[in-house]
Amino acid sequence: PQHITWDPIQAEKNGYAHFMLKEIYEQPRAVRDTLRGRISAASGHIELPGLDLSHDEIVHAERILIASCGTSWHAGLVGKFLLERMVRIPVEVDYASEFRYRRPIMRSRDIGLLISQSGETADTLAAQLEMIAGDIPTLSICNVVDAALTRKARGSITTNAGPEIGVASTKAFTAQIAALLTLSLYFAQCRKTMPQEAVQSILRELEVLPKAMEEALRTSAPVCARLAKIFSNATDVLFLGRGIHYPIALEGALKLKEISYIHAEGYPAGEMKHGPNALIDETLPVVCLATKDGDDPDSVLKYEKTLSNIQEVTARGGRVIAIVVEGDTAVSSLVEHTITIPRASEALLPILETVPLQLLAYFIAVEKGCDVDQPRNLAKSVTVE
Amino acid sequence: PQHITWDPIQAEKNGYAHFMLKEIYEQPRAVRDTLRGRISAASGHIELPGLDLSHDEIVHAERILIASCGTSWHAGLVGKFLLERMVRIPVEVDYASEFRYRRPIMRSRDIGLLISQSGETADTLAAQLEMIAGDIPTLSICNVVDAALTRKARGSITTNAGPEIGVASTKAFTAQIAALLTLSLYFAQCRKTMPQEAVQSILRELEVLPKAMEEALRTSAPVCARLAKIFSNATDVLFLGRGIHYPIALEGALKLKEISYIHAEGYPAGEMKHGPNALIDETLPVVCLATKDGDDPDSVLKYEKTLSNIQEVTARGGRVIAIVVEGDTAVSSLVEHTITIPRASEALLPILETVPLQLLAYFIAVEKGCDVDQPRNLAKSVTVE
Repeated sequence: PQHITWDPIQAEKNGYAHFMLKEIYEQPRAVRDTLRGRISAASGHIELPGLDLSHDEIVHAERILIASCGTSWHAGLVGKFLLERMVRIPVEVDYASEFRYRRPIMRSRDIGLLISQSGETADTLAAQLEMIAGDIPTLSICNVVDAALTRKARGSITTNAGPEIGVASTKAFTAQIAALLTLSLYFAQCRKTMPQEAVQSILRELEVLPKAMEEALRTSAPVCARLAKIFSNATDVLFLGRGIHYPIALEGALKLKEISYIHAEGYPAGEMKHGPNALIDETLPVVCLATKDGDDPDSVLKYEKTLSNIQEVTARGGRVIAIVVEGDTAVSSLVEHTITIPRASEALLPILETVPLQLLAYFIAVEKGCDVDQPRNLAKSVTVE
Repeated sequence: PQHITWDPIQAEKNGYAHFMLKEIYEQPRAVRDTLRGRISAASGHIELPGLDLSHDEIVHAERILIASCGTSWHAGLVGKFLLERMVRIPVEVDYASEFRYRRPIMRSRDIGLLISQSGETADTLAAQLEMIAGDIPTLSICNVVDAALTRKARGSITTNAGPEIGVASTKAFTAQIAALLTLSLYFAQCRKTMPQEAVQSILRELEVLPKAMEEALRTSAPVCARLAKIFSNATDVLFLGRGIHYPIALEGALKLKEISYIHAEGYPAGEMKHGPNALIDETLPVVCLATKDGDDPDSVLKYEKTLSNIQEVTARGGRVIAIVVEGDTAVSSLVEHTITIPRASEALLPILETVPLQLLAYFIAVEKGCDVDQPRNLAKSVTVE
């Protein structure tokens, strides 16, 4: 029997037009509740009691294998960037539906990581069984306490996002990234791959992240509502990003696809010249993730490369909507539309830039009169194969 | 100075309406020339003298890192499936434009593999420099002798596809897969991960593969020409495949995108229910790779899962074009259109199923009056970032 630990009243729309909009606005709370009790910036301490891995297992791990589906797969890709950067451990991310049928190679020092909002996704459960058969420990990140995935996992982190009703996942996604950030920092501490000062600095930023998310909601909502009126007739949209922003581009495209039925596609910005550039004409909106962390030279470099990609798009007549950080002037002089989010470290930008992409998809779908909470052909939890 | 070792006369259109069509038809020759002198089914011997890796380096390799762009990236994904299955060595495939900026993790027993038709692709060269800086040996698969990538690589395999003029890569792609097949079998022999009888059986099939490709050209061309008339007005197309057929779905979508400007997108079939299903309506053509190798239980299982994916698409009104092997009746009873290719082992099917996807893209682009050989916004070799 599955225990529901939250209050049913919480699941109501609470004055919002749709569950999805309510859930988008609940994200600061969802992220706060996911971090609560697990991190302390003051002490620099990270606590993940549910993880159930020995210090040795973490220190000697050689590879992390992530398997998930849809939006959770995008969270997995963000996790790959975080873990590889912070922990210097190779991470492989698979579609669960592919992992289960491809006789994946597993080695004794691999750790499996499964991500699923419901914790009942059939393909993800099957991927977990493969991992268990391959004799590697599995961790789960789920939004439901006592989900099937969690019960079979050695260790788990619950995202405390609360019940998600809208079929298109929103708060579960940003909460998953918050959980992955916590996990990455925890592993980095165990394996001493980051100076403690750097860990603590991110912890401090994480503690105020919900406030920054509130600001992102406040400033981007009216802009997204206005842009939705301009772009709701688009038949196709491209989403571009580099590095850790690439999975967010994929997620932005998936949101739009799911609820507005517009054919949106995400690409790593550097791949455009190898094919997708052919799609660009005066009718094509291109959403570019052009944020940067000014204190991180790698982030600045990627930002500069993204700037040239933006110039290539505008030179071919494409209509660019750029997501930028506060104070950015370089991008706004190049493009038609910008959406501003608060500044943050590179590792935290994905959560903040997700907010306007969700809102953009939401307002466009509403503009088109689509059934936002129950898009056609889709179910909330995919418990069949 | 770069030496051109082929005859300029070979580069003419030779009676074909476009270079691309000529190059599609040259594929049996390109694959034959790529395999020639390297494999012998009679002796079971595989010779790759340009590889320049010691037996020990091959036997003790722990991971292969592939970096490439566009169509060559799809070849890399096929290579991952081949190497993991035949050699049981984990393979990571990156977009070169991402690899170069993500501080990739490299370890002393990793081997780098770069794939590029021209061997001059800027991002791929930069990825190679990263690998060299990471102190791992690099191998290249290029179609140009003495290309920049080859000169800097420790070892190389030249695809002898001959000069490719059409911007959309065709014969270079199937030749790359042939080279990757040879490499995989060679590694499998060195590491004894396949029984010699199984290696020899694939070698025998490889020797007659060009003949099978000729048959695929002969039987699928008229079907593709007819389908092009039906579907040339499509604004969007999805391409679905599982396992080793998934990268071919991506490649089929990229061909169509590049030369017809139709927004085509490839997906692993199992992911549809996690979002893309929302796009399906009565106007959406969905190309499904539904081939199987009847002697391979894994292939049959994936085929059956693909059958249910096809049923989900047709149940929602989507218009399916399925690529099947000769003698298949299960699929044709389900879908509107089928394109038949000769039967083959799972490892060889990707090359055969690529043929009709190229022809489909070609005929649709011609039907739409597009400039097939020089699509807008694209260059043949991307020698700038």
